[in-house]
Amino acid sequence: MKTQQLTDFSRLCVHTITTKPLSIESAVNKYAALGIRGITVWRDALAEDGAAATGRLIRDAGLEIVSLCRGGFFPSVSKEKRAIAVADNLRALEEAADMEAPLVVLVCGADSGQSLETSRLQIRAGIENILPRAEKLGVKLAVEPLHPVYADTRSAISTMKQANDMANWFNSPSLGVAVDVYHVWWDEELPGEIARCGENGKIFAFHICDWKVPVNDILNDRGLMGEGCIDIRGIRGLVEGAGFEGFNEVEIFSEIYWKTDQDKFLDKITEAYLLHS
Amino acid sequence: MKTQQLTDFSRLCVHTITTKPLSIESAVNKYAALGIRGITVWRDALAEDGAAATGRLIRDAGLEIVSLCRGGFFPSVSKEKRAIAVADNLRALEEAADMEAPLVVLVCGADSGQSLETSRLQIRAGIENILPRAEKLGVKLAVEPLHPVYADTRSAISTMKQANDMANWFNSPSLGVAVDVYHVWWDEELPGEIARCGENGKIFAFHICDWKVPVNDILNDRGLMGEGCIDIRGIRGLVEGAGFEGFNEVEIFSEIYWKTDQDKFLDKITEAYLLHS
Repeated sequence: MKTQQLTDFSRLCVHTITTKPLSIESAVNKYAALGIRGITVWRDALAEDGAAATGRLIRDAGLEIVSLCRGGFFPSVSKEKRAIAVADNLRALEEAADMEAPLVVLVCGADSGQSLETSRLQIRAGIENILPRAEKLGVKLAVEPLHPVYADTRSAISTMKQANDMANWFNSPSLGVAVDVYHVWWDEELPGEIARCGENGKIFAFHICDWKVPVNDILNDRGLMGEGCIDIRGIRGLVEGAGFEGFNEVEIFSEIYWKTDQDKFLDKITEAYLLHS
Repeated sequence: MKTQQLTDFSRLCVHTITTKPLSIESAVNKYAALGIRGITVWRDALAEDGAAATGRLIRDAGLEIVSLCRGGFFPSVSKEKRAIAVADNLRALEEAADMEAPLVVLVCGADSGQSLETSRLQIRAGIENILPRAEKLGVKLAVEPLHPVYADTRSAISTMKQANDMANWFNSPSLGVAVDVYHVWWDEELPGEIARCGENGKIFAFHICDWKVPVNDILNDRGLMGEGCIDIRGIRGLVEGAGFEGFNEVEIFSEIYWKTDQDKFLDKITEAYLLHS
């Protein structure tokens, strides 16, 4: 007897970076044709005629914009670079507003030339600088904790606890947390911290992929759901148990899959989504 | 004016794996000639005539044996493999006793085919199976937390907190923790957990190297002290502040350095030790 499959695509979202070789037009059409309901747009995928046009394109295809990826990268030993980062994040907020994306995901950044504590203070200062504008535009922000393997240059926020602490420090309904299974699956504190995040109404996004064994490139060898060791459905259960009702966003960086036929890859994604997430 | 250099080698130890191309005889002679006082022996470096002979060789050269690396790798979905692991750990204990090494370091293991919780229970069971023999032989065991990037196959114990919890659960003077800067530097809880470990008298070993930016191979591209972003001296300060008085053990896995002239590499190690740790 075949395993009983789930058949509900209503909460499936795909990140444009997952199908990086596709243009935004092509991605939107292919996602819509497969019944994928949500799309998260990476800034490099914005249509040439701008964010507003990208938003229209997506809505015309019947898709929902889940978020714009990504802002962040606030810390730097250089004050000038920190100011540049804030300006760039403000631009991202305008783009999100223009395309009517409800959320900007923050990969918060780190500078290995200074302590993680200093980087975290600079992240806080960066968010402080953009949060009023986000609130005014009605665009939410989500702090995404990144796996500790990226603590050197990508995120001084390595755990759900740290992301929760940051969100709670601001106590703004516009600032929450993005949970990505790849980054947090190893963490013994995860169940408690997801519950805490949910109690505060701060789970703003949920990203899925898998951790391959072995993983050959820590950045761009992410697996399709079911190809690795993450208990994706278990974490999804925690997130939904904590009150999250949003999309399951497939975010896979993979040099291997980017080289394959993207139609076949999308078929695999929808199949893996039903079976393993 | 030149930077004031420390000149004390009395607490410097080198792991045989750091100079992997050298035979044990050659490593011992070179370390001793440079004034390096301690050696941690990896099991693959044991002399052909056995552990006892290796111990004599080391003591005859005036070096102190700091530990034998390594035991562990307890978890497996296969009961048979778990039994094989226990048997192998018992052999490691005999080797340590034969060579008069005071400590065996445990890289605890993980099996990606099961949950991390299950792997941790199997680690506990594995330690339970070997601890009485360790106590009888007068050989200590140190649980080494490994960076979360290794949670898939190398260690379900990813943080100092988890290592402390494991050591405290047993509450045996023969079971403690090995602190390796490479694995724990990213952890916000590190100061508190090192203090906790020290209060319980459980810091049994301290390993140093550096986290290169970027790190090109997560296993075998470790940096010499000063080549990366770890605040080694800061962590050393925490460990010593918590009462640790043992060796600073240089443990560097590096395909790059293994290919270089090992005499020059050892010169770099002693120089980097004084400047950056």
